[in-house]
Amino acid sequence: MKIYVPFKPENPKSRLSGVLSPDERKKLAYFMLLDVIDACGDCTVVSSSSSKLLEGIKHEIDNRSLDEAVTSRIKQNDAAIIMSDLALLTEKTVERFIEMDGDVVLAPGRKGGTNMLLSRSRQFYTSYHYGSFFKHVDICRKLKLECRIFDSFFASVDIDEEDDLLELVLHGRGKRSYEYLEDLGFYVDLSGKDPKLVRE
Amino acid sequence: MKIYVPFKPENPKSRLSGVLSPDERKKLAYFMLLDVIDACGDCTVVSSSSSKLLEGIKHEIDNRSLDEAVTSRIKQNDAAIIMSDLALLTEKTVERFIEMDGDVVLAPGRKGGTNMLLSRSRQFYTSYHYGSFFKHVDICRKLKLECRIFDSFFASVDIDEEDDLLELVLHGRGKRSYEYLEDLGFYVDLSGKDPKLVRE
Repeated sequence: MKIYVPFKPENPKSRLSGVLSPDERKKLAYFMLLDVIDACGDCTVVSSSSSKLLEGIKHEIDNRSLDEAVTSRIKQNDAAIIMSDLALLTEKTVERFIEMDGDVVLAPGRKGGTNMLLSRSRQFYTSYHYGSFFKHVDICRKLKLECRIFDSFFASVDIDEEDDLLELVLHGRGKRSYEYLEDLGFYVDLSGKDPKLVRE
Repeated sequence: MKIYVPFKPENPKSRLSGVLSPDERKKLAYFMLLDVIDACGDCTVVSSSSSKLLEGIKHEIDNRSLDEAVTSRIKQNDAAIIMSDLALLTEKTVERFIEMDGDVVLAPGRKGGTNMLLSRSRQFYTSYHYGSFFKHVDICRKLKLECRIFDSFFASVDIDEEDDLLELVLHGRGKRSYEYLEDLGFYVDLSGKDPKLVRE
């Protein structure tokens, strides 16, 4: 089972533009990538373009679309595809994921996303974006592949929006991305009814 | 291990007032309770007041605060406390939860909540509300109890806000609460970039 982590170095995390500058978003994306690599152990980053950030990281450049880049690898090996913004991922969660039975295993994110995906079939292909989780379930049904769902909170939190940053600061202690956000002055105000992310 | 499901029959799910009438919120809360009972198997509902809804359901009335009602039970037995709005919970998730080692096991919800909690200690006590997950971690540290974290997406989705309803309609097929929402005309529009909950 090979583990691939797709990564896009240019203008990452644009939905966080309200709270982070372009440079801060870039650094956060990088530290989250390192957190994901820590959790995955031996893995290969599949980057949409070359970048100095990738120095010292095992990677391949593939400038095709995400679906083409991922599917071409699924056609060659049993492969796990793990998104690079799953900052809360732990070694234990990845281990439990890799050990799941099934031709295809899907880890749902909020809002219908597929945050981790594992394929032991050369027939399977991906369709990310626009409710991908259900598209992947449909593809399995059409291809008569056994599809399992992986139940994980840590894998479900992809850091896309401000609400997700809150989860990272709430649960991420010890992660590089957490420390970076702490350095930027982010903290959680727990005095109100709901925890609130604040920047000093 | 006894399983308790706290339940509040009066004016439930007030944060859903924007999309559901008081009667609809009451019915949704009831169907979610039944879904949780389905997932738990043998369990006891701890209701803050008597209600016709509880006919045929194993329950106890306890009009004290949530913390008092729950803690008094923890002082008597090994106990699991499972919230009544975890509509996506499955038997498998509850089984995996009950099998966890540790004096205390916590299942995080979004925004710092504690959606499921298990205690094998007579010393432990709860402090729900206001970022309860971290309060429970702190209580364990003070009491020198071994605290484990249970990693589950399905247990993390408590149905409080409109965004949570979206998750229920996305992932809840087969659940009573899902069918109820379907009857009310809710569906997910998957045509845009992000899935959107719509009511006919």
